[in-house]
Amino acid sequence: MENFTFYAPTYFDFGRNAEEHVGKLVRRFGGTKALLHYGGGSVKRSGLYDRVKKYLDEEGISYAELGGVKPNPRSGLVYEGIELGRKNEVDFILAVGGGSTIDSAKAIAAGMCYDGDFWDFYDKGTPIERALPVGTVLTIAAAGSEGSTNTVITNEKTGVKKGAGSDALRPRFSIMNPELTCTLPPYQTAAGATDIMIHICERYFSNTEEVEITDRLCEAVLKTIIHETPRVIRDPGNYEARANIMWAGMLAHNNVCGVGRVQDWASHHIEHELSALYDVTHGAGLAVIAPAWMRYVLGANPHKLVQFAERVWDIAPQQTDEQTALKGIEAFESFLKSIGMPLTFAEIGAKEQDIDRLTEKLLAGKETEGNYVKLAAEDVKKIYRYAATRNG
Amino acid sequence: MENFTFYAPTYFDFGRNAEEHVGKLVRRFGGTKALLHYGGGSVKRSGLYDRVKKYLDEEGISYAELGGVKPNPRSGLVYEGIELGRKNEVDFILAVGGGSTIDSAKAIAAGMCYDGDFWDFYDKGTPIERALPVGTVLTIAAAGSEGSTNTVITNEKTGVKKGAGSDALRPRFSIMNPELTCTLPPYQTAAGATDIMIHICERYFSNTEEVEITDRLCEAVLKTIIHETPRVIRDPGNYEARANIMWAGMLAHNNVCGVGRVQDWASHHIEHELSALYDVTHGAGLAVIAPAWMRYVLGANPHKLVQFAERVWDIAPQQTDEQTALKGIEAFESFLKSIGMPLTFAEIGAKEQDIDRLTEKLLAGKETEGNYVKLAAEDVKKIYRYAATRNG
Repeated sequence: MENFTFYAPTYFDFGRNAEEHVGKLVRRFGGTKALLHYGGGSVKRSGLYDRVKKYLDEEGISYAELGGVKPNPRSGLVYEGIELGRKNEVDFILAVGGGSTIDSAKAIAAGMCYDGDFWDFYDKGTPIERALPVGTVLTIAAAGSEGSTNTVITNEKTGVKKGAGSDALRPRFSIMNPELTCTLPPYQTAAGATDIMIHICERYFSNTEEVEITDRLCEAVLKTIIHETPRVIRDPGNYEARANIMWAGMLAHNNVCGVGRVQDWASHHIEHELSALYDVTHGAGLAVIAPAWMRYVLGANPHKLVQFAERVWDIAPQQTDEQTALKGIEAFESFLKSIGMPLTFAEIGAKEQDIDRLTEKLLAGKETEGNYVKLAAEDVKKIYRYAATRNG
Repeated sequence: MENFTFYAPTYFDFGRNAEEHVGKLVRRFGGTKALLHYGGGSVKRSGLYDRVKKYLDEEGISYAELGGVKPNPRSGLVYEGIELGRKNEVDFILAVGGGSTIDSAKAIAAGMCYDGDFWDFYDKGTPIERALPVGTVLTIAAAGSEGSTNTVITNEKTGVKKGAGSDALRPRFSIMNPELTCTLPPYQTAAGATDIMIHICERYFSNTEEVEITDRLCEAVLKTIIHETPRVIRDPGNYEARANIMWAGMLAHNNVCGVGRVQDWASHHIEHELSALYDVTHGAGLAVIAPAWMRYVLGANPHKLVQFAERVWDIAPQQTDEQTALKGIEAFESFLKSIGMPLTFAEIGAKEQDIDRLTEKLLAGKETEGNYVKLAAEDVKKIYRYAATRNG
């Protein structure tokens, strides 16, 4: 196990009607004037948005409003939010929505405390030392941004999608009411579940030895998602299954499952190029990339894939480690298919002829990607190619 | 799943040499003058105590000192600490030791912010609204107090052992260096592992349905302890196994495994009477009581015991649920025995003739104990009697 620090001071208010506490929580964590940040029409149609405003009014919290966050959130709206926040002298950013809205809120929160261009955090790796406090009212279990240090933004001018992270970005509070996710369509639900699983896989597939406790925690989250997701696909209003998925989604990315080990993150980065270029739903892109990544790294480094097969998918040991691992990957692919996720470029509108371009953008300025197996350009191309053709 | 809140803002600094950061961490979390609280000679003999003082000196943190914490920490030393802390106007309590030292430090931290008798928190359930900040340098994996809201103190005048809890008692930081636990004797190590397992069991044995995620997390911690403890019994200096146990011990009691469910806590309370009367090592007392509790509740409520058998101990389903569950309990007992833990009253110096008195003290002022099965006085006596005779 590697040395680590872990600091996750987010206050979670979880359960039915939890959003009623939003005004009190903004107040508790120092907010008096908030920037209320949200996405499209769904939070308005559901009535959630009006209720949140009512709870803020009741607590005497004033607010400016900025909607329009899209999946794969864009830098343009972040600039707009920073300007609006400064003009209105807000002291708190309140995100009402999913991971995209929260990631955009975090970017605004950091950008408002920085004199330069906020994109420096993403592009140049400028450390984020300060940020306005962020709170969230979560509406989809997927990104885990409600408990994480991370934010991913797409620069729409350059088509570059990049992440940044800092302890300063951990939300001060997150309101998690599983009821709010019960109206999500099956495709979005399944893409969210896939994102959760791959957040775990990026941590699980590690060469750091002697990490039994975090391995077991990773397997616990994966087993839960495997058990609960088919239940909500069949019965979207199943509160209990939604609740288990929602809490699992937070745990998958606040890093409690990932401390003390070198993590991988190749699948996420390889996918980011797809969602930047084709505006694919991130979880769907991961369903295409992660199994292709697993099949490719299997030859070079099977050991953790064997454990994944045996402990997560209950595969009995086969004649060789490779065979055991392959059965695990196949089980994972069958699962993804069963919940309606794509496995190929064609299903998400990605094109084989873009592979060189995708790879070039991915590796711009670095030799390799990932840690479980270090992938050079040729390796990345083979992963994209497998995802394109399911052959090789 | 029940509604819940979860707020665990402890900064963990985990790994080799982490104690070097103690001065900086006291400073970071607002301390300028600390009460340095510790137990017996072992932290002095090992040199840890002098090193901690050096790191405080280097950061310009001044301190008063109070040693002498014993296992099953006493109220007398807490009164002394409150007085010493006030006289020296300390603004931070730094515990260097195990759960007893940390629990005593939490009591002093709360007592210093309270005009009345600190024992009110434990005896009358007076809410703890404020406490001085507490930091810890942990030297044994067991109680989980380094990440928890809880403290247990024994009033030596009355022989009453009681707990109290508050978010205000969560340590601001905990330094967890597994090397510091490598010199622990096997018996203390095993008693710590048992305490960790029963912290999980108190949460796991619940009638709250649809808690797959926390069930799986509980199982992950148990599996880890089952895997790692025999390794450190054989090889006390095994850093990696110590590290996994240490982090598991924190997770077992910071409540990440217990949110959203009604918890039990009968075994702990039944054991507290033993350690109050006979000054037994808490973990050893739990090894005697918890399996006896399991055997007794099996008849009334087998369902979670069946899951415990199948998922934690890999027991194949037997002809009846009771048989499956019983095989799980037997596996647990064999495990405890294999790591050197007692299973009977005789081994810990407890006496069958005290059972009425133990039960009376336990149930003073309440009808039943526990939640998985509500235990009246006659039930508690049967559990004690089974532990005394291993028969019935």
